[in-house]
Amino acid sequence: MDSIKRLIRDIPDFPKPGIIFKDITPILGDPAAMARICGAFEREFESLKPTRIVGIESRGFIFGAVLAAQMELPFTPIRKPGKLPYDKISVSYTLEYGEGTLEMHSDGVGSDDRVIVIDDLLATGGTAAASCELVERLGASVAAVGFVVELLFLNGREKLAARNVLSLVTY
Amino acid sequence: MDSIKRLIRDIPDFPKPGIIFKDITPILGDPAAMARICGAFEREFESLKPTRIVGIESRGFIFGAVLAAQMELPFTPIRKPGKLPYDKISVSYTLEYGEGTLEMHSDGVGSDDRVIVIDDLLATGGTAAASCELVERLGASVAAVGFVVELLFLNGREKLAARNVLSLVTY
Repeated sequence: MDSIKRLIRDIPDFPKPGIIFKDITPILGDPAAMARICGAFEREFESLKPTRIVGIESRGFIFGAVLAAQMELPFTPIRKPGKLPYDKISVSYTLEYGEGTLEMHSDGVGSDDRVIVIDDLLATGGTAAASCELVERLGASVAAVGFVVELLFLNGREKLAARNVLSLVTY
Repeated sequence: MDSIKRLIRDIPDFPKPGIIFKDITPILGDPAAMARICGAFEREFESLKPTRIVGIESRGFIFGAVLAAQMELPFTPIRKPGKLPYDKISVSYTLEYGEGTLEMHSDGVGSDDRVIVIDDLLATGGTAAASCELVERLGASVAAVGFVVELLFLNGREKLAARNVLSLVTY
């Protein structure tokens, strides 16, 4: 995945001074890179026989929706508060730059779903752990959690406990 | 597209009393419906020889990214303020429920790009017109603007002027 890593830009002091933000936007502008990423996800995940892809707002929508289309699986969005219009469940959590809440429709997953949760980046793991909690609270199982990028020095995997975690590019 | 229309839920009084929100989430959960939608977009747009898909945050990311992957085209996100980390341009506009600002990276489109702008829903047209303005300000042309749903009674097409507009489901 060195060809993917070369597309990721370092943005110093974003969103706050002292933080080096990993900008994955150039990946989105490269259809071959997108195909490699979603192809790698599919190869890793197909043996788990997933029944649904869950994507975390907003960049997780991009990779998650493309993976869902490619694997011909249903897609469920997890969103920031106040965005989802139907009956929903919510969870609050600590994230890299503060506090957050995430929501999912209560019919977003079924109790027999085997779910792949997708986001672009694993940092401290708060957002991903909260998303897994939403999925599991509705009785579904998290078959795996997939990220394009993982920041190893933030130990986000610890928050994901025994769950099956795949990241394609690490720093 | 009656099979798509059947998947759209009416949510009364969201996000404000008196508004009936069109919830497209069930479409995302139906891979065959997603394939029909993105297939229809591709059939309509391929003769325009687009070079790039631009998706508007957040639901426009889902349909736009899947269309981009399917057509093997670069994808550029248009986002709400403060989300994009790199050099960017911005535009303020009036939207259905208030005021808004949108941003795009300054390298998000090139001056020779023929762009398809994608969002889930055309309401008053403010968001879509602002997105077209961002694309055109960088010298690119808007080949077409595509929506899954159009609310005809809000006359959003007027704000899009002479641009080529396609919507798949209308109310």
